[in-house]
Amino acid sequence: MARIALPESGPPGMAGLLASRPAAGAAVSEFMQHLLRGPGPIPPAWREAIGAHVSRRNDCEYCSRTHAAAACAMGGEELRAAVTEGPDAPGVDPRLAALLALAGAVADGGHAVTDELVAAARAAGWDDDAIHDAVLVASAFCMINRYVDGLGARTPTDPEPYRRTGARLAERGYLMS
Amino acid sequence: MARIALPESGPPGMAGLLASRPAAGAAVSEFMQHLLRGPGPIPPAWREAIGAHVSRRNDCEYCSRTHAAAACAMGGEELRAAVTEGPDAPGVDPRLAALLALAGAVADGGHAVTDELVAAARAAGWDDDAIHDAVLVASAFCMINRYVDGLGARTPTDPEPYRRTGARLAERGYLMS
Repeated sequence: MARIALPESGPPGMAGLLASRPAAGAAVSEFMQHLLRGPGPIPPAWREAIGAHVSRRNDCEYCSRTHAAAACAMGGEELRAAVTEGPDAPGVDPRLAALLALAGAVADGGHAVTDELVAAARAAGWDDDAIHDAVLVASAFCMINRYVDGLGARTPTDPEPYRRTGARLAERGYLMS
Repeated sequence: MARIALPESGPPGMAGLLASRPAAGAAVSEFMQHLLRGPGPIPPAWREAIGAHVSRRNDCEYCSRTHAAAACAMGGEELRAAVTEGPDAPGVDPRLAALLALAGAVADGGHAVTDELVAAARAAGWDDDAIHDAVLVASAFCMINRYVDGLGARTPTDPEPYRRTGARLAERGYLMS
């Protein structure tokens, strides 16, 4: 049950919150578009996988299901285990696993990030820009998850809205039309 | 010790991270300017107080000291107890205390926000827009705190850099010059 008035017919999840507050909606959307789709060393499908993993760690059902769908729509079904089980699942690309482990620590808090996790990301082939971006994207999902669940955004139970929103994020990104 | 290469002579805290990554820096700065200085029912000094309180809850020394300084530079020394001790300190304005209590729950996680905390904010006189903005600002500091501590941004020990940065945020806001 939403904690602020939202249109009955509006979209679920964050989109419903953003549509109800156009100025904040534009600011959040543009920021997410930059982080998730802007230039950078981490492929956008893997940034979505980071978002899904952090959201799962933060127990945010709406965001974890949405960004799992977006990651797989963009990067294929081979990302499914990473986004639903995390970095230790069998078959996760070791470069992605290193970023997911780093991102999972960010979900626990800034002080949970260790030199060892950063060194493991470097050993997997990532540079400073990638480490910066992974921490910032993971941090941004710690914001979004709290925004969605703190305000009680609508969280559908059936899979179809997640598939549809994931496909839309894959095709059109975050900017509000 | 920073976990990514940063200029030795650069500013401490988030400004040092943002200066090292101009594209991300512009995106984060514009977003923060919108949230902390844009139109809305919560006075900007109180938004800074929310930021200081959430940062203290997240154990982010750089952000808590910086935004405490900004809050007091903008709203006066009567905000000092609120930003250093939280909503239960003696003498905190009850309208601000209700927002700080809500924001503190956001720091714990989206599911830590309760109907009771939202009802208390309404009872203190706040409307839906204020509740929305308080949750979003608190969520944004959960991002910023993780970004700063996760990447090991420089955190000065002496008070002068915090006073200076707080004064700059009060006078000029978040946009990078």
